[in-house]
Order: sequence, then C-alpha cells, then structure tokens
Amino acid sequence: MAAIWLNGEIVDDSDARLSVHDRGFTLADGVFETMRARGGRVLWLADHLARLRAGAALLRIPCPLADAAIADGAARLAAGAGREAAVRLTLTRGPAARRGLWPPGEPVRPTMMATAAALPERHAVRVVVARSTRRNEHSPLSRIKSLNYGDNLLARQEASGRDADDALMLNAAGHVACATVGNVFLRLDGGWITPPIADGVLGGLARARLIRRLAAREASIAEREVASAQCAVISNSLGCTSVRAIDGRPLEDAPEAREIDDIYEIYD
Amino acid sequence: MAAIWLNGEIVDDSDARLSVHDRGFTLADGVFETMRARGGRVLWLADHLARLRAGAALLRIPCPLADAAIADGAARLAAGAGREAAVRLTLTRGPAARRGLWPPGEPVRPTMMATAAALPERHAVRVVVARSTRRNEHSPLSRIKSLNYGDNLLARQEASGRDADDALMLNAAGHVACATVGNVFLRLDGGWITPPIADGVLGGLARARLIRRLAAREASIAEREVASAQCAVISNSLGCTSVRAIDGRPLEDAPEAREIDDIYEIYD
Repeated sequence: MAAIWLNGEIVDDSDARLSVHDRGFTLADGVFETMRARGGRVLWLADHLARLRAGAALLRIPCPLADAAIADGAARLAAGAGREAAVRLTLTRGPAARRGLWPPGEPVRPTMMATAAALPERHAVRVVVARSTRRNEHSPLSRIKSLNYGDNLLARQEASGRDADDALMLNAAGHVACATVGNVFLRLDGGWITPPIADGVLGGLARARLIRRLAAREASIAEREVASAQCAVISNSLGCTSVRAIDGRPLEDAPEAREIDDIYEIYD
Repeated sequence: MAAIWLNGEIVDDSDARLSVHDRGFTLADGVFETMRARGGRVLWLADHLARLRAGAALLRIPCPLADAAIADGAARLAAGAGREAAVRLTLTRGPAARRGLWPPGEPVRPTMMATAAALPERHAVRVVVARSTRRNEHSPLSRIKSLNYGDNLLARQEASGRDADDALMLNAAGHVACATVGNVFLRLDGGWITPPIADGVLGGLARARLIRRLAAREASIAEREVASAQCAVISNSLGCTSVRAIDGRPLEDAPEAREIDDIYEIYD
C-alpha cells in the first residue's frame, strides 16, 4: 500500500487501476524515467522531462500533461518516500480500443504514472560480460528509455547465475555498450573512456556529467579491452557504483569514484 | 466492455484490475501467444501452450496454471467472440514487491490473461523494407514471443508513414528476418525460401506448416535478394497474407497463396 501518481491524481496503489488493454502492458509501448529526489526535490528534473518527451516523440506517444503538472506530482510523491527517494515516471500509449500492433485511426489516451521508493543503497559490484544477449545498436530504442527491458533483464539474470551483481552488455558489433541499468566508464591506459551513444547507449544524465567530471573520452570499447581495464564505474540517475571485479578479475579501486558522488548534489 | 480471462476467472474487462506494479507493464517482463479459434475451439493449442512455456522458461517466469485450465479459459473466451476469433494469452512475472530490474529473493505471483476479439479480415498488403530499426538476432528474445514489441512497432509506424501496410525487418547482419507480426516467405528463382530461426526469427506455428506446404527452404535472405522476389507471403497464427508490393515494386500474385489457407483447417 503506497501512494502513486496516476494520470494527474495521487492515489493508493491498491486502489489504482490499470486497464488490461494498456499498450504498455501488452506491447511495451511506452517510456520511463528513473529520478533521484531529496526532501521532495527532484534532481535534474528538466533534463529527465526533456528525455521522456524525446523518447515519447520517437514512439509518437503524446505527453498528456505539462511539465509543471508532472513535476508537481513527482515532487509530492518524492516527499512522501523518505529523505532520499527514487521516483519512476512511466508514460505509455494507454489502453487500446482494438487489438493489433497499430490499428489505424486509434484514439490515444496515454497513461502517465509515477511511483516512489526509498533510494537504494549502493555497494561496489562484481560484473560479468553478458553472453546470453546483446544490445541492439541498430535500434533507436537502444538510445531511449523505452519499456523494452527484456534484454537487460536476461543479462541481469545471467549475472545472477554467474555469482555477479550486474552485467556489461556488448552490442551486435561486439563493443561494450552499457550495464543493465546504467552507463559504464572504464579507466584504460590513456584515461577514462565511455562508449558513444551510437554504440547502442542511452544518453544517461549522470553519464553526461561524468564525462565532464572525469574528462572521459567517448569511444568504442572492444570486448578485449575490458581485460585491461584498471577500474570501472557504473552510473545512472540514482548514483554511481564502483566495479570491483569483471569476469572474476579484481579491479583497482577508483579514487575518483569516491569523489564523483558530488554530481548528485547539483540540481541543474 | 468485454469478457476477459484473468488469473483463472472470466471477468468483465472494465472490472478487471491490473497492478500498476506489474512487471509486464513496467519492464516488458512477459510473453504472449496469439491464437486462432473457430466455434470456441483453439487452433494448434498444444503448440501454442508449449511455445508459451518455452518463452516463459527463458525468462524464468513460472506458469501458474495447468494446460487444461488455460485451454478451458481460452475456449470459453473464444466461444463468446464470434464464429472465428483471435485469442491472445499473456503471461507476465506479475506485480513487483520492490523496485528494480531483478530484486533478489522476490516472490513471484505471475499474471495470466486471455482476451478475445473477432478474427481480423485479411487483405493483400504493400510492404516496405524498414530503415528505422532492425531485428536483434543476437538476442534470444528475437526467437520467443516476448512483450518487447517496440522495434516491431517502430517498423510498423515507418510503414504507415511510407504509405505501406507492413514492413520487412532486417537483422543486424542485414538479412531479412520477418514482418512486424508474422514470418515471411519469398519466392525467388529456385522456389520458396524463408529466413532461418538463427537470423532473429520467431518459430511461427504457421511458418512450420508453410515450410512443409510450400516445400520452402530455410536460408538467409540478403537484402538485395528482396528486389528479385517474384512473390511473397506473410504468415502468423491468425492467417496468411499475400504481399502485393515491396518498396513500391508490384509482385506477382502467388497462386499457392490462395491454397495455403487450408493449413488453418488442421487442428493438429
């Protein structure tokens, strides 16, 4: 029993109704954002809303509410979820009137929802390079935060079965793309490096800030380069995590990783 | 207001409740089947249920009901949806107790749903080769019927914008994989050909029957070969459709296409 925000109203989740015909449920026809909040204030809110709208535009889902209304709903939920919270915004095309992938002339009644929970704690993680699936850099979905999380889920299940906490995902070309819920930065001989968006990478809001903070270079990372990484960091909008081992090989502690948390202090 | 079958009960869809935390909704964490039925009898039911269970096993989603109970629910819905019906079965991991991609020790309470509608009419279609996205043959999701339909949706939207009815999807290697909701068969010089499963193809139940019916060969189809196809057929479990043009080039009528509908008569 927790408060959620559904189509502009705060309601209890046990009372909330989602249509069984919602295309977010039947076809993963939607987008989401996961945002960090402190004392009811949402970090990087304008950037999150801009990214949500860009993803929705790609899928041609109209956003039914103004930014101010969404911000108000998210802030109200965040305030009730503890001092530091994780707020998830979800936008789908809403309930289908007819069956099928793309019925012509279908009226669109988008579903917009926000949920909040206490901010999860961060611990250094052991990762493996996923063998079970790959990121699809040929799809624009790899560059937006769509609901299509099946490949990330398979990679995370694989990690769990291999006694690891997370997985690095390769793309079709065999380059490192990202972790299952975050961007990845590796320190190689020449400094910090992170895969470019074109390699099937979500343009993470923390990623953009870490590129500046670590003076990181955007360049493709071949799978074999992973073996020579000295240290690694995984980032998303909720926080940064140090990687302590890749495929069982221990990594060095990244001194920078203890300092980069200050990016989450800046509400720009 | 239509009858649906939800977790073993027939209910009205306007009364049916789906948790806002259902992982089918938040993470596309589920599978589905679309089945043809006549007079309440579901075509190829055993094969559909076997495929549903195989897809669920890949995602490690337990199937909460026995085949007989699912069959009963599907048949009851189908009987109420007209002489010929399309029945969709959906199975998800169900409502999450906690946020996150894969919370450890999470109890699983799967959601299982069936909906039914009148069988859609079939017309010959104009298709384009999708440029906006590609099928990911490196992902096992390309070979099961998961809820991750975002790429198919993008390809269909592109087709609609290019004055076509459907799209052929290429895979990362540039080979033809499938249409947006069906398998594809092309007649080239040497006879009928359809892409192999390894090219990022769902093992369609109609596909398996058409391979036998048309004496079709399974082989990769390079994009350039599409330009020399004489005729083409798109198949799924609801029916077969002739393709009348690809990228604006008219195709010949496939005489076989008028005869292959009899595969849908055989309740094996």
